[in-house]
Amino acid sequence: MTIHTRFTELFKIKHPLLSAPMGGVAGGKLAATVSNAGALGFVGGGYGDIAWLERELGITAREARQPWGVGLITWKATREMVDLCLRFKPHAFFLSFGDPEPYVDQIKSQGVKVVCQVQDLAGARKALAAGAEVLVAQGSEAGGHGATRGTLPLVAAVVDLAGDTPVLAAGGIADGRGLAAALILGAAGAVMGTRFYASDEAQADRQAKERIIQTSADDTVRTRVFDIARGYDWPEGYTGRAIRNRFTERWHGREDELMAVANEERAKFQRAAAAGDYDTKMIFAGEGLDLIRDIQPAVRIVSGIVRDAEQSLRAGTALLR
Amino acid sequence: MTIHTRFTELFKIKHPLLSAPMGGVAGGKLAATVSNAGALGFVGGGYGDIAWLERELGITAREARQPWGVGLITWKATREMVDLCLRFKPHAFFLSFGDPEPYVDQIKSQGVKVVCQVQDLAGARKALAAGAEVLVAQGSEAGGHGATRGTLPLVAAVVDLAGDTPVLAAGGIADGRGLAAALILGAAGAVMGTRFYASDEAQADRQAKERIIQTSADDTVRTRVFDIARGYDWPEGYTGRAIRNRFTERWHGREDELMAVANEERAKFQRAAAAGDYDTKMIFAGEGLDLIRDIQPAVRIVSGIVRDAEQSLRAGTALLR
Repeated sequence: MTIHTRFTELFKIKHPLLSAPMGGVAGGKLAATVSNAGALGFVGGGYGDIAWLERELGITAREARQPWGVGLITWKATREMVDLCLRFKPHAFFLSFGDPEPYVDQIKSQGVKVVCQVQDLAGARKALAAGAEVLVAQGSEAGGHGATRGTLPLVAAVVDLAGDTPVLAAGGIADGRGLAAALILGAAGAVMGTRFYASDEAQADRQAKERIIQTSADDTVRTRVFDIARGYDWPEGYTGRAIRNRFTERWHGREDELMAVANEERAKFQRAAAAGDYDTKMIFAGEGLDLIRDIQPAVRIVSGIVRDAEQSLRAGTALLR
Repeated sequence: MTIHTRFTELFKIKHPLLSAPMGGVAGGKLAATVSNAGALGFVGGGYGDIAWLERELGITAREARQPWGVGLITWKATREMVDLCLRFKPHAFFLSFGDPEPYVDQIKSQGVKVVCQVQDLAGARKALAAGAEVLVAQGSEAGGHGATRGTLPLVAAVVDLAGDTPVLAAGGIADGRGLAAALILGAAGAVMGTRFYASDEAQADRQAKERIIQTSADDTVRTRVFDIARGYDWPEGYTGRAIRNRFTERWHGREDELMAVANEERAKFQRAAAAGDYDTKMIFAGEGLDLIRDIQPAVRIVSGIVRDAEQSLRAGTALLR
């Protein structure tokens, strides 16, 4: 038994599930493992570190026996970065946070499908006009960068807008129930990030993964402080959801003060980050945190989610009397 | 065919749907109509205007032939207000925004069920400890007052916490898909506010209802500015989601400035509100806005939602191959 949707059909894959291209965390091993498990695995190219991309894309290209993809932060992307990624022959290209239009033709010309993540209806309209072949409706619950609209109503509204274009749900989805709920809303599948952060294959140290499974989503915050500390000039409207720590307690809500001392704080931040000090360094994580209770091999995460989603769908009709 | 859950069983009602106690908007007529349609209708007692409560509760008590309820803002409630409401023999009492503990025994001693709305896991734990008989997990997408966590992951996490206590989902749910998705997440039903705001029976003028059906959820904001303008001293952590207008454009993000001129602005605000000037006066509305396209009689809203929810649940299992 499998769940069949327009998304599984488009990529000829088994499961309506995509592992998010978490910058630097979703490396080649995780992407290949998720794809080989029957979902669509993604390498998280983030801000476009060339050496990292070449190494990780090489791993996925060698190890994946099923369709896989790569993602970049759109406002940081260049045609050169996109070309580099395309040379590894991904099946899908994930663009998020910015106008996808400059890259859509470049990607499509290589027979690669364009997946555009959007955070509101205005963004969905733009992505459709630019030629997106899959939309991801990303709610504010998502870990890492995102915006303000909530997943549940955003997904339904983007589905209404998208016509025949498949829509995936992202943000706060971390288990089979969440995938099933997304399908009920009309989505063709779901994107999960934080759930795969807590996988054996994710490129993060044990301490970060342990914090993921120990922390409640009550203790995350959408904030700009880590972008300021890292010197990333994100466009207006985007913030990153992270686990609260000493750094957010100190600076969140005092962004102007932080910017005034940014050089000094940046050096301190870099030292703490290099030392793996998570009282300062960020762990980007979404509101699915409460539903994530163990670190597992990605293969088992995929099979568990799909099994639970099927069961949730059946339990839904069992309520009808 | 009906949808059977622990919530419908607890109240011996037909549909797993509750109309939110929107302060001043959910009057006696709306509550009675929703209840007579087979859902659980609520009068929105808000800040506790005694004359309004006596009139509206009198209407519901006379007209409702099925279970109905009343809601108060917990931090504004008093034992006297609660007693006044209980004299009208409601079947359920909805407490939100604050510690329910001081009122739980008072309410239960009259055989009335206590429904506690919570905005995070910490609040859910407190409400369960206080003796809540139904929990409402309210996401940030909700119209009017609320907090920061998103509906979809919050509902799943509160369901895991609540054991045998039924959980309803609130925030951004405005149609049958949303109700069905809530059930799939393990909720025993859903709470809808904004959808019933755009009903014939809601106590709001035509212009406000028209703005509800014309506005996209991209154009709402969680803000304190209307509370400051009205002189309500809401506890830390709560904001009200409203349709953006000239007043939010001017003051949102400048709350300290607004407080500095609060007396003057309050008088202007009151004049504008009295004149029905919605460029200044607030319309509280949730992120379900995109899914609300018409003003309907409440009876038709209930039947349409339930029919669509049943269809969504069946469509879910049809994806299994």
